[in-house]
Amino acid sequence: MTQGTGRCRAHTNIALIKYWGKQDEQLFLPMNSSLSLTLNAFYTDTKVTLDQALKQDVFLLNHQKQSAEQTLKISNFLDLFRHKYSISAKICVESINHVPTAAGLASSASAFAALAGAINEAARLNIGLQELSTFARRGSGSATRSIFGGFVEWQKGTCSTDSFAIPLDDAAWDIGMLIVVVNHREKIISSRQGMKRTVETSPFYPAWVKSSEKDLVEMKKAIVTKDFSKIGELAESSALKMHATMLSAQPPFTYFEPDSIRVIQRVQELRKKGLECYLTMDAGPNVKILCRLTDMDKLKQELSTEFSQDQMILSGVGSGIHSLSENEWLLSKKGLKS
Amino acid sequence: MTQGTGRCRAHTNIALIKYWGKQDEQLFLPMNSSLSLTLNAFYTDTKVTLDQALKQDVFLLNHQKQSAEQTLKISNFLDLFRHKYSISAKICVESINHVPTAAGLASSASAFAALAGAINEAARLNIGLQELSTFARRGSGSATRSIFGGFVEWQKGTCSTDSFAIPLDDAAWDIGMLIVVVNHREKIISSRQGMKRTVETSPFYPAWVKSSEKDLVEMKKAIVTKDFSKIGELAESSALKMHATMLSAQPPFTYFEPDSIRVIQRVQELRKKGLECYLTMDAGPNVKILCRLTDMDKLKQELSTEFSQDQMILSGVGSGIHSLSENEWLLSKKGLKS
Repeated sequence: MTQGTGRCRAHTNIALIKYWGKQDEQLFLPMNSSLSLTLNAFYTDTKVTLDQALKQDVFLLNHQKQSAEQTLKISNFLDLFRHKYSISAKICVESINHVPTAAGLASSASAFAALAGAINEAARLNIGLQELSTFARRGSGSATRSIFGGFVEWQKGTCSTDSFAIPLDDAAWDIGMLIVVVNHREKIISSRQGMKRTVETSPFYPAWVKSSEKDLVEMKKAIVTKDFSKIGELAESSALKMHATMLSAQPPFTYFEPDSIRVIQRVQELRKKGLECYLTMDAGPNVKILCRLTDMDKLKQELSTEFSQDQMILSGVGSGIHSLSENEWLLSKKGLKS
Repeated sequence: MTQGTGRCRAHTNIALIKYWGKQDEQLFLPMNSSLSLTLNAFYTDTKVTLDQALKQDVFLLNHQKQSAEQTLKISNFLDLFRHKYSISAKICVESINHVPTAAGLASSASAFAALAGAINEAARLNIGLQELSTFARRGSGSATRSIFGGFVEWQKGTCSTDSFAIPLDDAAWDIGMLIVVVNHREKIISSRQGMKRTVETSPFYPAWVKSSEKDLVEMKKAIVTKDFSKIGELAESSALKMHATMLSAQPPFTYFEPDSIRVIQRVQELRKKGLECYLTMDAGPNVKILCRLTDMDKLKQELSTEFSQDQMILSGVGSGIHSLSENEWLLSKKGLKS
């Protein structure tokens, strides 16, 4: 395969049962299985062109040619496919991130899922989605889950081939998420470093792994029975337990900002008042609020006394990766939704 | 013994290796041993008068006669002494809390230590300090440690008679504490309820107990070698681990307020800048900063850009309980330091 083009869209996802800690840093094998909800508000569109004539890989992100360092990360990822499928061509990767800059959300999940989908199409590899998720995983752990839509489980597995994602439920029911963007003052520890420190030093870490596996079982039951309250309680608990492991690391660290605590307090207050919503947080200060899709506007209204419109982003449930037509791709490049 | 008067002062203390969780709620036996620093800035003065003529116990706090409910708590505590030593007299308890109202610090530690000291003197019981700490414990767990000054260990023991405090070091070196008073919006879970929920529901709790015992060993070594940095690191770690157990409870809870996080961030920043200080927090939003006594003014200055003078209280190291003369007691009642 020396020529070919593929275009793919992948949405980001938010873990409800958190992934925190690797058992293999090279292969991105996690210590515990996780479970996420794919969001439709944030996605990456990627076009891959195999071109024998190119002297080296090229990577354009949001129309900007990226540095050698950034391009090398992409090349290393593409090598996984090139080695396995004997592809010799250099590759041009163009990506458009449809994630509001202010959102401060990691785009690596949608980025590597979209890239995996695009190379699969460009080189006509016909890799099935489950296996494709093992490739996405090598780019970024959370990308494993972005291959699918709705509720997705990432089974930790035992080796590189059986650590993959499976779709559980399309979540096409009354579910949404409101993301509160919280500003922070300085760059904090990366999630990769944070995980590593936690695994190596927290006395609570073994209990985290065990309790996550229990939570996962409960969460899957709650999804089957469409028990929104239980899903929310488990999600909030998993997130706060993950943040607890960081406070117990040596030296301790936290992603909490003053405004993160304000959102946590507001969510718990609103719940007492009867507006059912639950929070989750990742390796950063933003707070994501799981709620009923039909409550989302009301929730935003309630929070608008303390947070600006720019700080609040609404999302419904997203689908799995899918091909884009050339026309859809051109619209995406213009910054328009197709 | 039907008549007699005793007057006693006890200082409050801040745990550096935290006590969090009871193995016996009735007897206040803790799940783990703890270690504290007694502070001179906050204390309770208490006068106890045994009076056969009284029909019932009387309890005055800061010149105000207390409710039947409050008085009952004191009576129950006094009964421990009356039963063991066959005292039939009713008792008048007068207490003056020298804790700034704004401080929002629990005064139960100094209150029950002072009360134990005053009844010991009034009834001429001659209970030794170590045994007296087992009585103080029955009023409030942390009161166990307020019997002594400086660095104090509360050995968890195995039963009511061997769960007592021992003095480790008078801490008469370059050590102080700055308390940052953080306002909070609503009453949160009491420490008693918080402990109970944590012990019963947190998957991290067994690891907390184990790691606290390890930290205690390290802390005692650091005190012997006067290793201030190690003392500070262990204190900060113990506090944040305790707060981590709360985030992992079911349902999760936290005493963190937005301003608590601001203080935590400032402490970590100042440390990077070379001003050595470490934080600790109890079952509330206030942050206590352990520092060099000689750095205390500088630390206050640094924090004054974000916190008002009223919010910051300085303290040196306090001594153990001691008798007051009638003159000292009268000065105390006038709100004056003797």
